[in-house]
Order: sequence, then structure tokens, then C-alpha cells
Amino acid sequence: WVWSQFQRLLSAGESAFVMTLVGVIIGINAALISIVTKWLSDIKMGYCADGWWLNQQFCCWEVDSDEEFCSSWHPWSTVTAARWLLYVIFAGVFAFVAAHLVRTMAKYAAGSGISEIKCILAGFVMQGFLSFSTLVIKSITLPLVIASGLSVGKEGPSVHVACCIGTVVANWFQKFSRSQGKMREVITAASAAGVAVAFGSPIGGVLFSIEEMNHIFRIKTMWRSFVCALVATFTLSVMNPFRTGKLVLFQVTYSRSWHFFEIIFWVILGIFGGLYGAFVVKLNMQAAAFRRKHLANHGVAEAVVLAVLTAMVGYFNRFLRIDMTEMMSILFRECEGGGDYNNLCQQSVQWSMVNSLLLATIIRMGFLVISYGSKVPAGIFVPSMAIGASFGRMVGIIVKAIYLTNQQSGIFSSCDPDLPCITPGTYALLGAAAALSGVMRITVTVVVIMFELTGALTYILPTMIVILVTKAVGDFIGTRGIAEETIRFN
Amino acid sequence: WVWSQFQRLLSAGESAFVMTLVGVIIGINAALISIVTKWLSDIKMGYCADGWWLNQQFCCWEVDSDEEFCSSWHPWSTVTAARWLLYVIFAGVFAFVAAHLVRTMAKYAAGSGISEIKCILAGFVMQGFLSFSTLVIKSITLPLVIASGLSVGKEGPSVHVACCIGTVVANWFQKFSRSQGKMREVITAASAAGVAVAFGSPIGGVLFSIEEMNHIFRIKTMWRSFVCALVATFTLSVMNPFRTGKLVLFQVTYSRSWHFFEIIFWVILGIFGGLYGAFVVKLNMQAAAFRRKHLANHGVAEAVVLAVLTAMVGYFNRFLRIDMTEMMSILFRECEGGGDYNNLCQQSVQWSMVNSLLLATIIRMGFLVISYGSKVPAGIFVPSMAIGASFGRMVGIIVKAIYLTNQQSGIFSSCDPDLPCITPGTYALLGAAAALSGVMRITVTVVVIMFELTGALTYILPTMIVILVTKAVGDFIGTRGIAEETIRFN
Repeated sequence: WVWSQFQRLLSAGESAFVMTLVGVIIGINAALISIVTKWLSDIKMGYCADGWWLNQQFCCWEVDSDEEFCSSWHPWSTVTAARWLLYVIFAGVFAFVAAHLVRTMAKYAAGSGISEIKCILAGFVMQGFLSFSTLVIKSITLPLVIASGLSVGKEGPSVHVACCIGTVVANWFQKFSRSQGKMREVITAASAAGVAVAFGSPIGGVLFSIEEMNHIFRIKTMWRSFVCALVATFTLSVMNPFRTGKLVLFQVTYSRSWHFFEIIFWVILGIFGGLYGAFVVKLNMQAAAFRRKHLANHGVAEAVVLAVLTAMVGYFNRFLRIDMTEMMSILFRECEGGGDYNNLCQQSVQWSMVNSLLLATIIRMGFLVISYGSKVPAGIFVPSMAIGASFGRMVGIIVKAIYLTNQQSGIFSSCDPDLPCITPGTYALLGAAAALSGVMRITVTVVVIMFELTGALTYILPTMIVILVTKAVGDFIGTRGIAEETIRFN
Repeated sequence: WVWSQFQRLLSAGESAFVMTLVGVIIGINAALISIVTKWLSDIKMGYCADGWWLNQQFCCWEVDSDEEFCSSWHPWSTVTAARWLLYVIFAGVFAFVAAHLVRTMAKYAAGSGISEIKCILAGFVMQGFLSFSTLVIKSITLPLVIASGLSVGKEGPSVHVACCIGTVVANWFQKFSRSQGKMREVITAASAAGVAVAFGSPIGGVLFSIEEMNHIFRIKTMWRSFVCALVATFTLSVMNPFRTGKLVLFQVTYSRSWHFFEIIFWVILGIFGGLYGAFVVKLNMQAAAFRRKHLANHGVAEAVVLAVLTAMVGYFNRFLRIDMTEMMSILFRECEGGGDYNNLCQQSVQWSMVNSLLLATIIRMGFLVISYGSKVPAGIFVPSMAIGASFGRMVGIIVKAIYLTNQQSGIFSSCDPDLPCITPGTYALLGAAAALSGVMRITVTVVVIMFELTGALTYILPTMIVILVTKAVGDFIGTRGIAEETIRFN
């Protein structure tokens, strides 16, 4: 009896050990990818005199405020036009290197990888898709692609990389390498950890592995995902790649709660999310068909052209110029207390702001449709959220303008006249949730991720309402999520 | 084709309509239960001269501060001893009425009901368990039991009531009343809504219905749970029973984050949670065996004796005297900014505070073991959390005392000497999570519920670590959750 107990413990211990090991490696890998991405993004603008390996943040570590001049950081040139040219050239070079590496060394590293992983979990066998070479190449090319400024995100590829790590590590252990079922469990857990480290959202990762990855789910698998996501997030937090001690990407605190009449505008955002999802999925499939027909052998050139175009056009819009996550953290903020980037909150320029945001929404959508699916690692999570956020903020500013001109009107009667009634930042948050839910067709996961990303506790109910509408619109139109559509296309 | 589309839409519409209707009724019912509970709890202490139907809060609505004297609210007597006696008598009367109603009108209304619902979802048929009479009697007796001060919670019964509502409503529709499978889906969704309204935690409800209620789960059911929980929470929020506009039970904001060395103490809390769970489940099963043997026909007398005893003993501990949710919201708070209830934060009385908290932990545990399972509606969620919170706060105060006497020691080197390093409130939060997870053996749900209850975003990782340890300890000891043990016992 003692022996059988010991064996049982050993077997349980082995599983726990493998999950922990996978989690630790995923965490370390994610931290390294973050550091390299930041450095590559900054090198487009200039270099650090104290050491070429420092990014702008670390180079200027001792300079306190953003206002002060940082003497160690040198822009490449003092002429604006030259700076812009170098920016575009760097974008092209990064895209070229990434596409070339993918083309020559690991074809499977292209795209987001989530649809293929869904196939593998459903029982298909794809030799080499979760191999060590895919892992290495995708980890190297992902920072290059993000830094090149292409309208793609790092979350999908991050899940793929995590699943590669899971497979590679589990293959070292006989218990896992012999059993397809156990291997699938490891892959599911690793996908949870991948989302967890990409968003800093461990519970969101667990739910993602439930909602998106499997159609039928066992409680035991959930527990494995929990452990793996926890370990990976904790490792990332110990590594602390940004030295801020924070995992939360864009923490916001809303000092005011919502009003019931705002439900009308949430419905609008929800409808936008549903339409956005259907539209992007449809156009992206057409782009994929076009790509297969005409660009099959020009993957590298395609990526370079896209990167150069994105860099050239994006430079002229104040919201496309900056990084997507940075843009979102600006758009989510309340106006009070330092949220006034580039006069975003000034009433005098509200219509020009609406204009900028609408342009940003449309242009980014266009680039996303043609970029997602090109032959480089490319995710669709963050770009979708960015598009939703710019649209939502636009709606928020319009609603605020309507309120300010009709303060006495009936529907605004629940507003306290002494306080700001409408918070445009919350509309950006809800818009981001709607777009993400619309394109991936996931629901509970989106609520948890948005909530872990921002900590906006009072906005859980509004987020759920928006996602309810998005899901209803999506079901009515009848499109599937982009991952499923990609599976059917292939 | 048009006709088949129309039929499809109608069928989808019918399901959505039923889910919405169930959600609305659950929300309304929960709001009514809350209002009655508050009124009954207050009537033990005194009455309102402006109208007997007002509770203390509404009676004193116009009095701003807690310090000011509220002239409309009259305590029953000016003599302390008489007040205490009336308090105990009221407790006894409430318990008697509740137990008598349950005994004569609906036997199934006793207990928490969660274990039976798990059986029903697994395919057993229990005639009358989810009937209209159970619904009515449980809704009436639940406020009485809570107001009587018994060491039991309203969350388990609230799930049972929600499932009754789901069954009763769904039986009006042929589509559901004919199909066992569809009925189970409605019950699952209703259980999600029950947790959602009890805690004000919609996503926690959805996860509860995944993790606790089913062993294998379909994504479509999750979506139904989502809708039902959303509608119920929204209805509750519109009803706004406490006129505070808040659903969050104990919102806390921690101004400081955690340190890595605190992981040692989290492990202690996790071990406590695991041991607590095993201990309570084991003793409660013994109490149930004793009850079945000796008290089978004395259910009413038993409940009255328990209520009177609880009221008599509880009066002499400063943490047992007040309401459980009130106690938790006090224990979770940071000391800075008004968290100093009854000198809780004063260093001079820290050891007497530790003493009080330890006593509160042990006494409440004793009462919980003998009260849970008596013949009145009784849940185990909130008492477990309260026990965990008092134990956690005790650990927190001890850790703080250790820190203050050994500030120079190695493990505290990461503390900033100018700031308070240890926040005892966070230990209370983690202790509550550990105890809840230990007794119910649920994991992800607990993280989400704690998080939706308090909004403590930075403490997700610590909560996950604590629950990991709790789960490991529980698995090592080998006990099941209390719901499963109750099933086996019956």
C-alpha cells in the first residue's frame, strides 16, 4: 500500500513538476521577448550613448520627469525628415529580417497560430508545428515584427510560442511523449500561460483555454491551466522586465460610476463590435484568398511593403504614430488627473479629435485586414482592441458633446450638474472589449481580461452588456470567429 | 427557407426570453430577500419611530455622519442587560419560526441545497426539491435565519432559490418542461445567477456553474449562464436595495503592493485553508451523523437552541457581535483612511486583538460545524470566509509585530523604511480566499469572486498562490468538498 501511495504521489508530482517547468520557461521567454521588443522599438528613434544595449527608458533612468531633457539619449538625426526616413527604413529592415527568417527556417512560425493549435487540440497531427525550431524562430521574429510597427499584435504568437515550449518540455518526459491525450492537456495549459503572460492576466488565460481552445472541458484540465498560468505570470513578475513592478498593462481608476441611460450608447458599441468582427473576418478571408493566388512566393516583399506603408501613413495621425498599448492606455484614462494627452480632453478641439480617432479607426482596420495573415508572426488581439478603443473614445467624445449642449434634456436628468457626467475613457474601454469579442467570438474571457487589464471593477456589468449585444449581432450575421474561419479556409 | 430561418430565430428567441425572465425574477427575489434581512436584523436592536417598516439605515437617512445621534431610531430599552436579553429572544423567535415553517411546509428548504442540485444535474430525479413551495418557504425563512445570527450564510440557499425559480419558470414552456437536458441547462444557468446576486459577482457566478456544478462543460451552457447572471445582477442593480448604488460588497483599495518575502506567510494561510476545509468537513459529517441518530425529530428545538447559544456567546466577542459581512469589510481594510474599527490598528493593543481574533476564529468554527446541516436554510460560503478573514487578520497582525521588532533583519530588507511594509488587511483577504477554497474545493471561482468582491487587482497572484497551496494540502489529506461529502453521506 505504501508503495502504491508513493507511486501515486510520484506520478502527481511529475505532472506538477512538468507544469511548473513549462510555466517558468514561458515566463522567462515572455520577459526576454518584452525586453527585446522595447529595445528594438526605441532603436528606430535613436540610441543611448551610455551603452547601445539600453533602451530609452533605462538610458534615461535617472532623469525624473518626462519634461526634462535626457542627455544620454541621442536621436539619429536632428532633421525631422531624416528622422522620419530612418524610422521608415528601420521598419522595412525589421520586417525583411523577420519575413526572411520565417521563410527560410521555420514556415510554421508565420501567422498567429491559434487556429492551428485548435486543430491540434481537436486531434489533428501537424508535424513540426510545435517544434523547437518554430519556437526559436518565432521568439526571435516576434519582437522584430512588433517593432516594425505592422498593425499586428503579439498575443496570438505568444500563445503559439507557449504551446511550443509546452510540447518541447513535455517530450522530455516519457509519460507525456507517449500519450496524445496528456500532450493535449499540456498544450491547453501552455495556451493559458501564453495568454496570461501576454496580457498579465492569469485568470483570463485560464478562461481563454476553456472558452476558445476546447469545446468540452474537464475540471482537471482547468486546474492544470491554473497552475501553469500562475507559475508563468509569477515568473514574469519576478523577472520584472520593465522595472515598474506592475503586470497590469493599463491600470485605470474611474472616480465616477455609470448611469442607466448610457445603456443606449453601450448598445451602439456592442453593435459596432459585432459588425467589426464580421467585417474584418470577411475581408481578411478575401485578402487571404488574394494572397494565396497572387503573392504565394512574395511573402518577404509583401511584409516589407506593408511595414513601410504602415510606417509612412501612420506617422501623420497622432494616434497611429504611437505604440498600440500606449495609445490604449491614453484612451482609457479619465480626463481628470493627467489624462490629457495631446489636448484629447479639450472641448475646443473635440471635433478635430473625433476626426483623428475616426481616421485612426478606419486606417488601422484597413492595415489589419491586409496585414493579418502575412508571412510573419502576427496576432489580432491587440490591434482589435486598439481599433475598438479609438472608436469607443470617439463615441464617448460625441456623447459628451451632446450632453454638454443638452444638459436640461430628459435623458440626462440623472446626471449631477456639478460633476462631469460622461467619461469618454469608459467608452474606449467598452469599445475595446466589443471589438475583441467580435473578432474572436469569446465572451467571458474578454470580460475577465479587460477587468484584469484595467481593474475597472464598476464596469463589469456594462462590459457584459456590450458583449451580450456583440454576440447577438455576430450570431445574427452568422460569421464564426476568425480562428475558425481560418481553419475552414485552410 | 425564410420559414426555417424564422423558426430558428423564434426558437433561439424563446431560450433567450426564458433565460432573461429567469434572471429578472432571480434579481427581484434577491433584492426583496436583502431588504427583509436588513430590516429583521435591525429590529432585534430597536425600531423606527417614523414607521415600523424602516430599517435603521433608512430611518436615519438624513443624519449624515455615524457620530451624530439619530433621534427617530429607538433602541428597545435603555438598560444594557435588557437589550441583550431582547436580542437573544428575538434570535430564538426567528429561528423557531424559520425551523417550524421548514418542518411543516417544505422539508426540502432545509440546508444549503447545493449538494442536491449537483445530484440533479448529474441526472438524479428528486421530486419536489425544486418546486414552487420550496421556493416560497426558502425565500421567507432565509432572512429569518440570517437575522437570527446563526453562524450560517445566505449564498448556498440563494443558489437553491435561484434554481427553484429557474425550474418553475421553465416549466411554463413546453420546450423546456419536455426535455430533461434543457431543464438541466436552465438549472445550471440559474445557479450561476444565484451566486451572482448573492455576491454581486456575475463572472464569479458563471465560473461557479462551470467549476462546481458540472464535471464536463459545454461552451453553449456557459453562454446561457452568462446571460442569466448578467440579467439577474443588472436587475438587482436597478432595484438597488441598499440605495448605495453599489453591488460590490466590500470594496477595498490597497495603496501598497506586496513583497516577495510575504510568500512564506501566504503559504501558511494556504495550509490553514486546506486544514480548515478538511477539519470542518470531517467534523460536520460527524455532527450530521449525530443529528440523524439523536435529533431527527427535534429539528425545531435544535435550531432555537443553536440560535440562542450563538447570540449569547457571540455578544462577548467584538468580532462575533457584528454581522459577518460587516466584520469582513472591517478586516479587509487598510489601516490608513478610516480602517481603525475598535482600535484594530493600534499597536498598543495588538496582542489583545490577536486574542480576540483567535477566539472569534475558533468559536465561529465550532458554531459553523454544528449549525451547518441543521433544519433551516444554511449556507457555508460566508461563514467560511469570515473565519478565514479573522484568522488571516490575526496572522497579519503577528507578521506586522514581527516586522516592527526586527526591521533590520534580512528578510525584511526589501521594505521601504518610510512606508508601512505589512498590510494586515491583505492577509484577511487571502485568509478568506483560502478558507472558502478549502471548504468548497473550488479554485478559479474563488479567485474571481474575491476579486469581484473587493477589486484588489494587484492581489490576484497572491490569491492564486494561496489557493494553490490550499488545493495541494486538501489533495494530500484527501478529503472532498463539503458538497460531495454531503452527497455521499445521504
